[in-house]
Amino acid sequence: MNQTIEQLLGHYSVREFEDKPLSEEQIKLLVQSAQAASTSNFVQAYSIIGVSDKSIRAELSKIASNMGYVEKTGQFFVFVADLARNKRIAEAYKASADSLETTEKFLVSVIDAALAAQNMAVAAESMGLGICYIGGIRNDSKKVSDLLHIPDYAIPLFGLTVGYPLQNSAPKPRMPESLIYHENTYEAKDKELYYAYDDIIRDYYKERTGGVRVEAWTEQIAKGMSKPTRLDLKSFIENKHLGTK
Amino acid sequence: MNQTIEQLLGHYSVREFEDKPLSEEQIKLLVQSAQAASTSNFVQAYSIIGVSDKSIRAELSKIASNMGYVEKTGQFFVFVADLARNKRIAEAYKASADSLETTEKFLVSVIDAALAAQNMAVAAESMGLGICYIGGIRNDSKKVSDLLHIPDYAIPLFGLTVGYPLQNSAPKPRMPESLIYHENTYEAKDKELYYAYDDIIRDYYKERTGGVRVEAWTEQIAKGMSKPTRLDLKSFIENKHLGTK
Repeated sequence: MNQTIEQLLGHYSVREFEDKPLSEEQIKLLVQSAQAASTSNFVQAYSIIGVSDKSIRAELSKIASNMGYVEKTGQFFVFVADLARNKRIAEAYKASADSLETTEKFLVSVIDAALAAQNMAVAAESMGLGICYIGGIRNDSKKVSDLLHIPDYAIPLFGLTVGYPLQNSAPKPRMPESLIYHENTYEAKDKELYYAYDDIIRDYYKERTGGVRVEAWTEQIAKGMSKPTRLDLKSFIENKHLGTK
Repeated sequence: MNQTIEQLLGHYSVREFEDKPLSEEQIKLLVQSAQAASTSNFVQAYSIIGVSDKSIRAELSKIASNMGYVEKTGQFFVFVADLARNKRIAEAYKASADSLETTEKFLVSVIDAALAAQNMAVAAESMGLGICYIGGIRNDSKKVSDLLHIPDYAIPLFGLTVGYPLQNSAPKPRMPESLIYHENTYEAKDKELYYAYDDIIRDYYKERTGGVRVEAWTEQIAKGMSKPTRLDLKSFIENKHLGTK
């Protein structure tokens, strides 16, 4: 196993950081690493907004259920699925932009943004920094979009907080790879979940909470599935003119 | 700059591979690396289907506009946004699964799958293998889904071909990071695109095609925006009961 894979397998999310901004040099390297990821048809359909402004961070933190590590961190990045750039280019060429509102282009922009973000996460950890994805900004996508002046044809997807870690942890055990990985055909082979894996996760939580939380993974999933959240998202995306066709 | 970042910045897509399968050990490490990526609320809402069967690969290649590197490669992976597992778990608990069809959960599954894929891509390249994402399987999502027996509440997103490269290349120049990266507020600062960056890309194509292709990046984008593609995707996803709410 090489050093890169060792790093990937050692990943854990960090939720406490030094209150020390990243340097311009670090940010540049992180953004360049993000950009080096593959992009569908070379379309580069995303933007990254770095939020250094403390008052904006405070607003974002409030939206994300008061997560301190949105405010106190090295840099807070918001990843944006961005077809607005493409729209401006089409306009400059007086070309039609009929494909802008297709579900295909929306998916492309979401996937492009996510691939870029994961490259940034890997780069950050290779620099000794810690990271945590912040899906919580989707608690109020409209407000985040307004705060950061994100135009039509673009939406904020998630945040990524990157900073000097004040926390040591260990990877959270993923489900056995035999359950994620199928050969040639999709198989609903879940039995292992309820036996081996649920036990692992029950023990994991028990150990980390001094016995307070004893929850199996499947219990956690079943609970999550019964609670619809962020029901504004569908109309928010449509109002941004994305994925309507 | 450390070795990992050097690797990320050196990425290019490979489109010609040895006809030599990856070992089980390699595939296991690739899948584990994928799994180590962050996952929203620990939901792990994706599956990976490894396609070793040559006849299925031939079908997938046909769908993806006859790309030889879908067939002749080390392993062909299909990344699946997968909420079907969650549905089965909710059923086992006799819990409601009201959130399954929300746009939020659909986005989570797409982002989870993409983060995992990018980790696999990074792991593969660290092992000296080459990769290429294959969005072309979305030319006929329904057929791919049927071929691989992907159930409702799950869709194939893209392929990732991984193998022993028969090709040396160099990174394709991304747009200047000042255009992807915004500070505190989204800014439509595109002028640089039409000057510095278009020139870079024009030269890049010219050099690689012996002068045959001379296209600016913005031209390429404008053309792409005027051609709606994969218009079946919206109803395909809805028929899978994803993102309807």
